[in-house]
Parts: sequence; structure tokens; C-alpha cells
Amino acid sequence: MTTNDISSQYLIAPDPLATRLTRAVDGHDETGAPVTISVVEERPLTIFLNKREIVTAMTIGDYPKYLALGFLRNQGMLSDDDRIIGVDYDDDIDTVVVRTAVETDYEDKLARKTRTSGCAVGTVFGDMMEGLEGLTLPPAPLKTSWLYALAQTINRTPSLYLEAGAIHGTVLCQEDRPLVYMEDVGRHNAVDKVAGWMLSEAVAGADKILYTTGRLTSEMVIKTAQMGIPVLVSRSGFTAWGVEIAREVGLTLIGRMRGQRFTCLSGEDRLIRDIDPAHVVHEDRKHRRKGAKA
Amino acid sequence: MTTNDISSQYLIAPDPLATRLTRAVDGHDETGAPVTISVVEERPLTIFLNKREIVTAMTIGDYPKYLALGFLRNQGMLSDDDRIIGVDYDDDIDTVVVRTAVETDYEDKLARKTRTSGCAVGTVFGDMMEGLEGLTLPPAPLKTSWLYALAQTINRTPSLYLEAGAIHGTVLCQEDRPLVYMEDVGRHNAVDKVAGWMLSEAVAGADKILYTTGRLTSEMVIKTAQMGIPVLVSRSGFTAWGVEIAREVGLTLIGRMRGQRFTCLSGEDRLIRDIDPAHVVHEDRKHRRKGAKA
Repeated sequence: MTTNDISSQYLIAPDPLATRLTRAVDGHDETGAPVTISVVEERPLTIFLNKREIVTAMTIGDYPKYLALGFLRNQGMLSDDDRIIGVDYDDDIDTVVVRTAVETDYEDKLARKTRTSGCAVGTVFGDMMEGLEGLTLPPAPLKTSWLYALAQTINRTPSLYLEAGAIHGTVLCQEDRPLVYMEDVGRHNAVDKVAGWMLSEAVAGADKILYTTGRLTSEMVIKTAQMGIPVLVSRSGFTAWGVEIAREVGLTLIGRMRGQRFTCLSGEDRLIRDIDPAHVVHEDRKHRRKGAKA
Repeated sequence: MTTNDISSQYLIAPDPLATRLTRAVDGHDETGAPVTISVVEERPLTIFLNKREIVTAMTIGDYPKYLALGFLRNQGMLSDDDRIIGVDYDDDIDTVVVRTAVETDYEDKLARKTRTSGCAVGTVFGDMMEGLEGLTLPPAPLKTSWLYALAQTINRTPSLYLEAGAIHGTVLCQEDRPLVYMEDVGRHNAVDKVAGWMLSEAVAGADKILYTTGRLTSEMVIKTAQMGIPVLVSRSGFTAWGVEIAREVGLTLIGRMRGQRFTCLSGEDRLIRDIDPAHVVHEDRKHRRKGAKA
């Protein structure tokens, strides 16, 4: 399959050649020879909810509206009850304004939350567990053949990562099909863009799988659960609290997924082992994420 | 050299066997066989400045006092004029209180800053460029032999990364000697712990090198500059804004440093190429960070 064929399988695939997302930067290599390398952009995007400035995120700059919507939703600042009447992006001043029919109760939230910001993993407005009380995800069956198919497709998809490195990716999937592949300098931004797309398109999470290149921290697990997605998969490792929360809310958590190998630390009873790992093709070196040039 | 010998070269080396920092978690591998893996902890630490609660960071939990001091310093909430009269850590309630002789002007800062939090790269209190106006780092010469020696020592140092993965490391170095090696679930925490140590020990940055496993984003470059350190080195890649700021403040920026290779995007004129890269030993697979198990 050519790489073009791979990208065309997605509803939204990365656009590694978009001129706005990377920049050619001159430098020198280890021998002193001049080199020009492709480097990802990182630019501020200020998000407003109605008249109030909420946050300035550092982002590569694609899909600003999805990022704004997903950020506000994942922070609990937009609920199901809030009717969105407009999302305006102004690229001159790097600003998105999300407007709701009725003023939201975000000001209360903002006042209460800013003091407990969980900075370490990128969460700005603390009280991270809010919205998870009593949440139980649907016990979705997960075939291991889907996992291998997804990893193989995603790793071979042309991406900003393969083009320029230094970027995280998050992919919304259904069974063995990747649907929406977002990348960003912050992995929480990539997840928020997926969440914003789901909100815009009224897509449910219950039958989806979220694949991320980043670590399975508490923040990633919480965001995934808030999006109603019962399966989270990563090439990277776990944190203890991430595992604990996943087990509490019934989220299937698969990490260290590389080639034939993976580790399941939550949801083992939902796994359907329909393929012999020995028959899975090894990753070739070029597409071994994190073995490449980032 | 044995790994013990390596650790003993540091003033502070990682303690991968500390029981508080990792947890054995049961799960299953790809064949369904039960496995028990070592997973890093991630716990909240709430930082107070005098009577005011500032932030709750998610951290592995070592060196809470350094993390608190470094966070407050790197956020501009503690200045050179603030005399610190106490740093109290209470491990029952995961809290550090930093006390100053005279109340600081942090309340003003807090009110002004929270609204523009740059969430994407972990910065909680925005206005990131503050404190960089007019800053120019000393034009410190940098021998490439130091870079290779540092990378080789650091990659072979026993660490939580090698033990459990899913963690970032930051190492304060001087010439070819690594001094202080901090790890954390958030790479900004690892940097803040280094900054806290420097503040506690009154160590200057002008003759130091900062080595990080994370990407060279604007946030990393700004923190390094604020610590007065003129050289930042990473295995990972760059962002365009990180490069731009490094060039503005005169910070030498080396990325994609793996085995014999590296790329210099700022400060080329300060590099002293005193070793032929062809004579540098290749990284062996076991110690190839990011090629390992995280």
C-alpha cells in the first residue's frame, strides 16, 4: 500500500507538507557541515468562552476550532447543556471565541479551579477527577487483531512526526480503522482536538479506541474517560495513578505496544485474543516511532 | 565502569530502587501470560507560597522541596530579593510551604497571569517571556568532547527511566561531568527540581550545561535561560519558537543528539569541535533511550 492510500483511509489524516505547520531552519551537524532541517511550529492560541479569556495554549496551529472546543469540553467548561452558537477563529490575532446561547457557569469554575492547577502533566484547571465520579465506561470487547492492525497503519501514516519529529499524535479509531489523526506539540492538545472534532460532529465514544504516542498518565486516562472512550492504547508506558483510575472507571489500558508486544494493565477480561502474536509482522526500523529522528 | 561507579560521579543521581517512586503492577502480556511490571508513581504535590496555595503539581514525589522552590523561581514568583526563611514539607498531606521573610508580590502576579496560562507545554502561569527581556546569556565555549562524554555517562546511569520507563530526565552538568540528575513524570518538574537545587545551594548557571531527554520547546528554552544556563542539549527535536528564543538570548541549542550525531541550531560559533565524531562509540541498543521500554 502506498502512503497516499494509507492517508486516504482517514476522515482526517495528518498533513505533513502543510507549509504553516513546519519551518525549515538552518543549522550545523556534528561535523560542522551546514544542514537545513524541518522543525515544527509552536504558536500561541488564545481561547475565549463568550467574553472571557480562558487560556493561551501553545500549539502547532492546525484545527484551532477543534482545539478550543475540545479544551473547553475536557476541562468541564462546556457541558452537554451548553448550546454552542458560534466558534470564530481570527488568525491575525491567534484567537478562537466559542459562544454559547446562554452564559455558562465557567466563571465559578475558573475562580475555584485555578489555584489547584495540576501543572505537571499539562492540566491547567485542577480538580481533575471532577466529572469522573460514578462514571463507568461500557465494557467494550477489544480484539487484539484490531490493535495490531491499528498500530501498523498508524505507524506507516505520513505525519509531521515522521517529517519533523518533536510532536505527539493521538488517533481516534473504530475497530481496526483509524478515523481521525491529530498531532500537536502538546499531547493533551492532540487529544483535545480529537475531542473537539467529536463534539462538532456529534460522534459518540462508546465504540471507539483512542491511540496515543504519549505516556498513559492520569491526565490522559481522565481525558479519555471524559470523552466516553472505553479503550486507550499507547506505545509508551504507564503511571501508577493512570492505571488506578483506568481500573476504577472500567477503561481498558494497553501500553508498551511495539511490534508483537504489548502490556494490558486494565480490562484484560475484555480482550479477545483472536490473533497469534507470533504471526504479527515486526516493525521495520524506519517506522519505529521514537526510534526515528525526533 | 560498573553502574555503581557511574552513579557515584553525581552529586545527586537517580535512585531507581527507591520504593516510594515505583510500584509493581500486575497485568498481562500480548500472549495473555500474567506479568508484573514496575510502574512510576504519579502523586499530587500542593505548593504554598506563605499562606497562599499556588498549584498542585503531579510528580513522582522525590525532592518535593526542590520542586517547590524551583517551580516558584521559574514562574517568577520568587525573585533574588525574596529571602526564604523556611521550606516545610508535610508528606501526610503532600504539601510544601515556602516561606519568605517579607510577603512577595505573587498575589498580583497570580491574578494577572492565570488567565493566559500556556497549557500546551505545562506552563501554568502565562506571560512566559517575562524576565527574558534584555537577558543575554554568557557566550560560554562548548567542547563537543564534553557533549559526547555527557551523553554516554547519562545514558548508562541507572535511572527510573531504565527501571520503569514513562519518565523524563534532566541533568545539570559542568564541562564533561554530570552533577545533578532529576527525573519526573513531567519534564518541567525535572527541570524545576534542578532549579530548586541550584537555588538552595546557591549554584550559578553561567558555567553549566543542561541536558534533557525532552523536546526543545519554547518552555524548556525559557526555563534554561531563566536559570542562567547558556547551553541546552537534548536527544529529542526542536520547535521553531524554541530555536528563535534560543537565538535571541544567546543560548547554545543542541538537539537530536544520538550516538555520533547531533544538530546545532543556535550557538554554532561557541562550539569547539575537539573530537572527530567518527571516533565516538556508537550507542549500544540497551542504553538507547526511547528505544528501550518506555
